[in-house]
Amino acid sequence: MIRIFVTGGTFDKTYDEIKGQLSFGDTHLPEMLRLGRSHVDVSVRTLMMIDSLEMTDADRDLIVRNCQLCAESRIVITHGTDTMVDTAAALARGVSGRTIVLTGAMIPYAFGSSDGLFNLGSALSFVQVLPAGVYIAMNGRCFTWDRVRKNRESGVFEAV
Amino acid sequence: MIRIFVTGGTFDKTYDEIKGQLSFGDTHLPEMLRLGRSHVDVSVRTLMMIDSLEMTDADRDLIVRNCQLCAESRIVITHGTDTMVDTAAALARGVSGRTIVLTGAMIPYAFGSSDGLFNLGSALSFVQVLPAGVYIAMNGRCFTWDRVRKNRESGVFEAV
Amino acid sequence: MIRIFVTGGTFDKTYDEIKGQLSFGDTHLPEMLRLGRSHVDVSVRTLMMIDSLEMTDADRDLIVRNCQLCAESRIVITHGTDTMVDTAAALARGVSGRTIVLTGAMIPYAFGSSDGLFNLGSALSFVQVLPAGVYIAMNGRCFTWDRVRKNRESGVFEAV
Amino acid sequence: MIRIFVTGGTFDKTYDEIKGQLSFGDTHLPEMLRLGRSHVDVSVRTLMMIDSLEMTDADRDLIVRNCQLCAESRIVITHGTDTMVDTAAALARGVSGRTIVLTGAMIPYAFGSSDGLFNLGSALSFVQVLPAGVYIAMNGRCFTWDRVRKNRESGVFEAV
Repeated sequence: MIRIFVTGGTFDKTYDEIKGQLSFGDTHLPEMLRLGRSHVDVSVRTLMMIDSLEMTDADRDLIVRNCQLCAESRIVITHGTDTMVDTAAALARGVSGRTIVLTGAMIPYAFGSSDGLFNLGSALSFVQVLPAGVYIAMNGRCFTWDRVRKNRESGVFEAV
Repeated sequence: MIRIFVTGGTFDKTYDEIKGQLSFGDTHLPEMLRLGRSHVDVSVRTLMMIDSLEMTDADRDLIVRNCQLCAESRIVITHGTDTMVDTAAALARGVSGRTIVLTGAMIPYAFGSSDGLFNLGSALSFVQVLPAGVYIAMNGRCFTWDRVRKNRESGVFEAV
Repeated sequence: MIRIFVTGGTFDKTYDEIKGQLSFGDTHLPEMLRLGRSHVDVSVRTLMMIDSLEMTDADRDLIVRNCQLCAESRIVITHGTDTMVDTAAALARGVSGRTIVLTGAMIPYAFGSSDGLFNLGSALSFVQVLPAGVYIAMNGRCFTWDRVRKNRESGVFEAV
Repeated sequence: MIRIFVTGGTFDKTYDEIKGQLSFGDTHLPEMLRLGRSHVDVSVRTLMMIDSLEMTDADRDLIVRNCQLCAESRIVITHGTDTMVDTAAALARGVSGRTIVLTGAMIPYAFGSSDGLFNLGSALSFVQVLPAGVYIAMNGRCFTWDRVRKNRESGVFEAV
């Protein structure tokens, strides 16, 4: 059984047609798993639904605590890309003995042209086979938490 | 560097709007990798573009030979789901020392609602971390070639 | 109030993921009207769900009879493109005093890249303003039934 | 020949994946006409690319002047929905002898689930058959400029 924690990020942004703005509603994770015809045994829980630029230390503590306490030893976290590396570092400090893979998207899933489904397939696969540790799965690649940064000009995660 | 061999299958079916039928054109692989914003170093080669129900022993020999001779030790093969298990068995008999992951789709990528992007993200991830062997990555899961069958009623790959 | 009669055609083809073939299920019309946020007052009825190449004289009689008997004087018919002109001719012979617009699609709606939504918006608009008569609305244009043919090589409807 | 003037609005909003915000790039009109397999003879010109809430009197003057001076007597204008009625009123005051249809979208075309293609098919159809005047085509319906308002709570255009 794999635990999926949802924290928001571009992954789950939607378009509010009354306000004409991007917003957060319910997570698209269940719909994405259905579209991918996933038969991986997962349990999805939404911890928060925010832009990762607005994520506070208290929010990160909440994520860490949920990873410490949950029954599953393999965990996927959907997360905004801007501070994904920071949350990964917090998890590396606070959680041990679990395989944790963070992933996200550059384009909202609700847009037809999203990379989200590709990234979800990737994260769910890496989490099943990698040893305990904290990883970031983006762009089809997987990085350990302390060997990656987001290049803010290209939007691409790269090794450091 | 990962090698991707394209053999056709539902993955790459398109709709011929003049004839009103499903058909095969060029592979959608490059477009899918672009959509997924993949930065995995891959080399794509189309070996054939056929429905896997029409795949002959000669076709399978061609796939095996390409896997024997290619420079890369990690290989993804896109393949129709109906005889994917047969090709996996032929590869297990004929190729050693390489990590080979077969994947496919239940719905053509050209349909908006395809599972193809999810499966591609999954296969590309499994192939990077699994030891040498022949595997099938479908529905977010990964099976060794001799422990899987396609349930033809549900369309789901399951362990045997 | 506008009546919409559904007869099948490419418009409503879906992909049967178990059989790997195109097939007909329920009509997508209600979903399309929802997507288009249509507030036109319509009443949808499925008369048949077939490829128009398989449409018989009896099928055409059924369509004509339904147009003769329905309460609404403005009618849209979704129809396969291959014999749309034949059905239009049958309607012109058998129905008078009503504005009837036939439309269809070159690509199934269930494919992301369908022209169906454009054609539906077009047909629903023409039917509200044109005088009594039988018309074909395709490719953004509207033809009277006796001044149009489908060019089978290009797939485009053109004036004759 | 029909003239299409592009002014921006939700229709043409895209998602800037580096900034994580909605933005305007090039218009999607040519791509939408291609998707709809439109064979209507049109000439597309972008006048501005803005949110209609930011449209000034000077912007409206520019639109009016372009409609006065263009060679075509049938004109479609894509426009943000929030102030579409205001621009329609300015056009009614400033332009005569032409059929002008304004349209827009509640969801950006770049989102898979947009109403834009339906509305474009509708506007292009109404403009071909309606007499001279200024109209708004939204939700499959067509209103004269002085008989319509946007209900800001429901997002629906309704008769007044």
